[in-house]
Amino acid sequence: MTISGFPEFLPGEQITFNQVIDVIKKGFERAGAVPIETPAVERIETLSTAKGNISKEVYGLRRLKAEEGDDATDLALHFDLTVPLARYVAEHASDLAFPFRRYQIQPVWRGERAQAGRYRQFYQCDIDVIGEEELSLLNDAEIPFIIYQIFKELNIGHFQIRINNRKILQGFLTHVGVNELEVPTVIGIVDALEKVGVIQVTEDLTKIGLDDTAVSSILEFFSKKALSNELIDYLKSLNIEGEFATGLNELTTVLEGIDSLGVPSDYYGIDISMVRGLDYYTGTIYETRLTGHAGIGSICSGGRYDNLAANFAGKKYPGVGISIGLTRLLPKLFEIGIIQPSKPTVSSVLVMSLEKDRQQDYLRIGGLLRNSGINTEVYLEDKKLAVQMKYANKKGIPFVVIIGQEEFDNNTVLIRNMADGEQRSIQVEHLVSTLEALLRNDHE
Amino acid sequence: MTISGFPEFLPGEQITFNQVIDVIKKGFERAGAVPIETPAVERIETLSTAKGNISKEVYGLRRLKAEEGDDATDLALHFDLTVPLARYVAEHASDLAFPFRRYQIQPVWRGERAQAGRYRQFYQCDIDVIGEEELSLLNDAEIPFIIYQIFKELNIGHFQIRINNRKILQGFLTHVGVNELEVPTVIGIVDALEKVGVIQVTEDLTKIGLDDTAVSSILEFFSKKALSNELIDYLKSLNIEGEFATGLNELTTVLEGIDSLGVPSDYYGIDISMVRGLDYYTGTIYETRLTGHAGIGSICSGGRYDNLAANFAGKKYPGVGISIGLTRLLPKLFEIGIIQPSKPTVSSVLVMSLEKDRQQDYLRIGGLLRNSGINTEVYLEDKKLAVQMKYANKKGIPFVVIIGQEEFDNNTVLIRNMADGEQRSIQVEHLVSTLEALLRNDHE
Repeated sequence: MTISGFPEFLPGEQITFNQVIDVIKKGFERAGAVPIETPAVERIETLSTAKGNISKEVYGLRRLKAEEGDDATDLALHFDLTVPLARYVAEHASDLAFPFRRYQIQPVWRGERAQAGRYRQFYQCDIDVIGEEELSLLNDAEIPFIIYQIFKELNIGHFQIRINNRKILQGFLTHVGVNELEVPTVIGIVDALEKVGVIQVTEDLTKIGLDDTAVSSILEFFSKKALSNELIDYLKSLNIEGEFATGLNELTTVLEGIDSLGVPSDYYGIDISMVRGLDYYTGTIYETRLTGHAGIGSICSGGRYDNLAANFAGKKYPGVGISIGLTRLLPKLFEIGIIQPSKPTVSSVLVMSLEKDRQQDYLRIGGLLRNSGINTEVYLEDKKLAVQMKYANKKGIPFVVIIGQEEFDNNTVLIRNMADGEQRSIQVEHLVSTLEALLRNDHE
Repeated sequence: MTISGFPEFLPGEQITFNQVIDVIKKGFERAGAVPIETPAVERIETLSTAKGNISKEVYGLRRLKAEEGDDATDLALHFDLTVPLARYVAEHASDLAFPFRRYQIQPVWRGERAQAGRYRQFYQCDIDVIGEEELSLLNDAEIPFIIYQIFKELNIGHFQIRINNRKILQGFLTHVGVNELEVPTVIGIVDALEKVGVIQVTEDLTKIGLDDTAVSSILEFFSKKALSNELIDYLKSLNIEGEFATGLNELTTVLEGIDSLGVPSDYYGIDISMVRGLDYYTGTIYETRLTGHAGIGSICSGGRYDNLAANFAGKKYPGVGISIGLTRLLPKLFEIGIIQPSKPTVSSVLVMSLEKDRQQDYLRIGGLLRNSGINTEVYLEDKKLAVQMKYANKKGIPFVVIIGQEEFDNNTVLIRNMADGEQRSIQVEHLVSTLEALLRNDHE
C-alpha cells in the first residue's frame, strides 16, 4: 500500500529520526540560526525561473471539484527550501535582522519517476546565512564548522567536508580556452567524470570544440583528487590571474576561517574536482562524504550564491548555506549499521493490570509516576500477565510495576527490571524515588 | 505575496511555536505514545469513504508536465491525520505492539474557500490509542489526563475539558421518539443551537416531523449547559434503558478514571449538550475550552471510535484520540496575550567585530564558546560598532563580547550585558566560565 517514493518509518526508526533532527537543530542553533517554516505550497510563479520556466518534477495542486474563484491551479508543492527562503526574505525583509541566519527542516516534493532509492517526498535540513546587499566571506567558514559539530555529535564515524570555489573552476576553464558561455556545459561534462570515465569525458569535451591541449589540461586539473590542503600550492603554481586568483584567495581565507573555528584538519579539505551541479553557486561550494562509504555519495552539500532573491526583490541578498538530505541519509546509516533504530518505545515503565477490579488503582499509580515526570504506560486491557509481559518485551520497556492482591494488602509494589528479570518489592511510597534511581542507573 | 490560508510565522513566533510543540511532544511521550509520521500524500482511494466519496476540499496532485506511467493523478494531500493513521495501522499491524499508542504532529491540507481565519494548511497534534479487536474503556480516561498535563505546562490559564458520550445522545433521542436513521440529522440540528438559537432549532426539528413533546424534551435536555458532574444525577433520573444506560455507565467509569489519574475536578466535566460534528465517534467525545475565551471555541477535540480502519483491514481496530489544532490556536493565544512570541533569537552571545584584521581571532572566540555549548554568533560584516549593537538589540541577544586592540594587547575581553548595559573586563581564559555563570543567572 505504500506509495513508491513516499517513505514512512516504523516507530523505532521514527524515534531515531527525531533524535537526529534534534541534534541537527541544536547544532544549527548553537551557531545562532533561528528556525523558520514556510508553507508546503507556493505559487507556481514563485517556483519558476525569471523566464517563467518550471521543472516538470514540480507537483502542482488541483481541486478534486473546482469551484468558482478557485486558485488551486496556481499552486504547487515546493521542491526545495531555498526558493521558499528567497520568497520569505523578500517578503519579510523589514522584520528580519541581517545577516539573517535561519534554519529550516521540512519535507520537499519532487515528482521523480518511481524507482528504488528515489524519493518523491524527503526532508531537507537547511541552514543559510543571508546578507543584505553584502555578506562577509568568512560566513563561508562557519558552514563547515556547523556541519562538523553536528556530524561529530551524531557519532557517524569519520567524514570529510570537501570545499572548492566556483571561481577557481571558471577561471581555470576560461584560462585554458573555454568560451565563457560554454563553462556550464564543460562543468556538466566534467561533473560526470566519476560516472562515465575519462574516455567518455575526453570525447564529450572534444565534441564541443576544445583542442587537445585544452582537454588534457582540463583532465589533469580534475585528476587532482587528493583531498589535501597542499593543493593550494598546486593552484598557486598555475599562476592564473583574474577570476581564478580571486577564487584562490577566497578559498584560502575560508580554509583559514575553518581552522580558526577549530575544525580538525583531517575533517575538511580542498577538492578541486568537485563542481556541484546547480548553477546558482557563485563561490564556495561544499560536499561531505563519509569515509569508507563512497557509495553513499555526498551526505550534505551547499555553497555560496550571489543573489538569493533576484526574482522577488529589488535588493541583492547574497547568501551561503548547506543542506542535509536526511530522508535519504538515515536509511543508508541504518543499512550499514552506523546508526541503529531505537526500540519502539519512549516509556520507562509499564504498570501491569492484574486485578480486574483495581484498574482505577493502576491508573492512580500511572498518574503518580507521570506527575513525577516518568514516562509511563498503564496496561488497561483484560489480558493475562504473560501477554502483558510480551507487550513490554516487544516494545523494550525497561521496567514493569506489578501490583497483585498481596501487594495491595501490604501496600507494596513489585518492580521488575525487564533486562535481567530482577524483581524487588518496595513500599508503595518509595515507588517514585526507587524508579528514579533505577532509571538513572539504566541511563549510565 | 503570502497565499491566503497558508500561514507562516516570523522567527520569534516560530521559536514559540516550536517550544509549544516540544511541550506537546513531551506530554504525549509521558503517556508512552511513540511518534510516527506519514507522508503528506496518500492515494485518493485511501482518502475516500468506503463508498468512494471524497471531500471536495481535498487537494489532488498533478504533474505540471505529464509523463508516461505518471501516477500523480491518483495522489492527494491528506486532510487529517486519522485516515493516514488507519492506513498505517492496517499496513504495519504485524510490526506494531497493541494497544498502539502513537502521536503525530504534522500539517494537513484542506482546500477551503479563502477567507479570514480559515487555514488551508494547518498543524494537527494528534494522540490516539488503537486496540486490536478491543480497547479498554479506561483509555478514554487517559486522553483528558494527557491534555490536562500539556495545557497546564503551557500555562495558558484555566481551561475545561468537556466530556460527553455519543451513546447517551443517541439513546436519549431514540427514547423521545427520533427514528434511528434521523439521529445524525437531529444531532446536526442541535449542534447549531449556539449559533442559530432556540427558535430556529425548534423550527428545524419540527420540520423533520418531531412532535411538540419530543421537541421540548430535546430542547430541555440540550439546555443543561452547566459543566457539572452533578449532571450524572439528572441523567440517572431520566431512567432510560438500553444504549442511553450503556453510555451513562461508560461516562461514569471514564470520569472516575480521570479522577484516579489526578486531574483536578475543576478542569473537566460533563457537557451533555456537546455533540461533535464528525459521525465516526461512537462513545466518549471531548472538547476543550479556555475559560473566559468562549470566542475561541474548542481548542482540542476528539473521541472514541469503534473501527478505525474499516476501509483497509479485515480486523477491527477500535481507538480513542484527540487533536490539538495548533496553527489556529497559537495566533489566538498571541492575540489575547496569553502567550507572547519569543524574541527572534536563540543566541546567548554575539562576538563583535572591531578590528578588521582580527576577524580570524573573533572566529576563534566564537568556536571556543560554541564548543562549550554556548549558542554564539560572530558578527563578521564590516560595520560600525553602533550597527552591530543595533543588530544585537533588534534580536534581543543578551550578551555581547567586545575585543578591541586594547583587549587584544592585554589578553582580555569585555562582556556587555545588553539588558542593563553593564560591562566587565575579564581575562580571556575566564570568558567561558564567566558567560556560563551570567547565563545561569539570566535564566533564573
